[in-house]
Amino acid sequence: MTVFDEEAAQAAQARQAQLTKPPGSLGRLEDLAIFMAGWQGRDRPRLDRVQALVFAGNHGVVAQGITPFPAEVTAAMVQNFQAGGAAINQLCRVAGADLRVVPLDLDRPTADFTQGPALDPAEVREAMTKGADAVDPTADALILGEMGIGNSTVSAALAAATLGGRAEDWVGPGTGAQGEMLAAKTRVVTEGLARHAPSTAAETLAAFGGREQAAICGAILQARALRIPVVLDGFICTAAAAVLTRDDPAALSHCLIGHESAEPGHRRLIAGLAMQPVLSLEMRLGEGSGAAVALLVLRAALECHNGMATFAEAGIG
Amino acid sequence: MTVFDEEAAQAAQARQAQLTKPPGSLGRLEDLAIFMAGWQGRDRPRLDRVQALVFAGNHGVVAQGITPFPAEVTAAMVQNFQAGGAAINQLCRVAGADLRVVPLDLDRPTADFTQGPALDPAEVREAMTKGADAVDPTADALILGEMGIGNSTVSAALAAATLGGRAEDWVGPGTGAQGEMLAAKTRVVTEGLARHAPSTAAETLAAFGGREQAAICGAILQARALRIPVVLDGFICTAAAAVLTRDDPAALSHCLIGHESAEPGHRRLIAGLAMQPVLSLEMRLGEGSGAAVALLVLRAALECHNGMATFAEAGIG
Repeated sequence: MTVFDEEAAQAAQARQAQLTKPPGSLGRLEDLAIFMAGWQGRDRPRLDRVQALVFAGNHGVVAQGITPFPAEVTAAMVQNFQAGGAAINQLCRVAGADLRVVPLDLDRPTADFTQGPALDPAEVREAMTKGADAVDPTADALILGEMGIGNSTVSAALAAATLGGRAEDWVGPGTGAQGEMLAAKTRVVTEGLARHAPSTAAETLAAFGGREQAAICGAILQARALRIPVVLDGFICTAAAAVLTRDDPAALSHCLIGHESAEPGHRRLIAGLAMQPVLSLEMRLGEGSGAAVALLVLRAALECHNGMATFAEAGIG
Repeated sequence: MTVFDEEAAQAAQARQAQLTKPPGSLGRLEDLAIFMAGWQGRDRPRLDRVQALVFAGNHGVVAQGITPFPAEVTAAMVQNFQAGGAAINQLCRVAGADLRVVPLDLDRPTADFTQGPALDPAEVREAMTKGADAVDPTADALILGEMGIGNSTVSAALAAATLGGRAEDWVGPGTGAQGEMLAAKTRVVTEGLARHAPSTAAETLAAFGGREQAAICGAILQARALRIPVVLDGFICTAAAAVLTRDDPAALSHCLIGHESAEPGHRRLIAGLAMQPVLSLEMRLGEGSGAAVALLVLRAALECHNGMATFAEAGIG
């Protein structure tokens, strides 16, 4: 597997120490520049071309009354993405990312995971391949997002299967479930966890779905092979990514978590992965929206890293 | 005093509720759009023209051995700003702000506040007027920053005089003071607090200085009169701004705190002002750098607010 380029990272760190600022005073902007250097394998990392991929899928488990929106909203939102009307469209424009939306068999929801496996192994492979194939090999960074009515329930199951804990630890309101609907989410996840005992990433994706989660996993693996740093979005995107750590604990080393979502399970997920979000803006929209805002911070980090004068250049010290 | 336009803010809030997303799911991006609407007095706020003002001054108290950098670095960094080599230059470029650097009598440091008042009342008025006059009346937002070797010591004194507490509560490493130097900062602030008992904003600025702090206050008051929302930077910028609350507890209602600095006193200052920072990136550079990164988030907020489709426009729901 592609590894972090320590030499490029050390060269970037040495450059940071020479720039006209007290050492360390750019905080996480310095860390982000060094992270990008190590994964891109160049001491002056760049963001000339950034791709945003939003995968969309539908979920049989919505039949259990676990979401306030009907499944048709997934396709309607895909149309909204394609028409340029969603949050992610505006955020990709302002952050300078090329948005590609990949709907995955929206008219063919996964099976209800309380009744059996959500996907068969071939369907998992197909969705992972679609995710991998969607990655632009010339991208300097990849933003990942998703859309899928019901997928916060799926994500709670994926997170519990991967990191342990009870359904209650991972279930939250998602797009707005409360009261009985929230109780139904917890019940459904509890039933799913009792029914399935997957071990590998592929088995976990087959057990609970969905296609957009498998595509996210495929894209992350492909980006790793291509040395493309990845910015994950919120709870749903991170839960999908976390599944990969079942096969390799270091599978997400080239990934950043763009933001800490307001969805309660995200904080636990981030802690479980021992990662640190770039932003915390109480966002909980999905679509890659938090990752796109984080891309702005990455741009700020690289502008400083590449554009600042050194003390020697400025004749100081 | 100019007040928040509740009508524009309510119109902005009503628009947020119609956009194609679960209600509230853009979190602080929604709050920021509504804040901007209220202060700009328009339901579709804009950021076509953003000004960044960086005020620079020198401080007699540096004679007390309270900073690892010599006072000459203030002028050298002003030159670096003017040559485009500093962090703030890169950040203003990426965030779309017009940077103006305003050096304030760099060859005439304030008096050492342990020996007497740092400035006389006329000097305070002069610096406040320079700050006010520097504000571009056509700006849609104003970013504030500062440069001044020794000014984290001055800021600790301003914060303690304004919000109470002991010197130890407000003194921190600044650009890198440790050990005896850190102890000297605390001693100097303790002596200053014992010597001076100012009540008003002007008296507080006269007691401790500095010129860049007075200019920040003048710029904030001018921006308020012009309905220009302000983004404050870190500890030093916020400590200067806080002084204005001595005259009017609501003096900073049109201001955001761009980020929570790694300088320990900033968290206490933010809490004392009952404000909430936009970002927390462990930055501690000053220059307006954290405020400029926050401007990127403001841009993201307004792009979503102004550019997203409503549910009706997208034919959803």
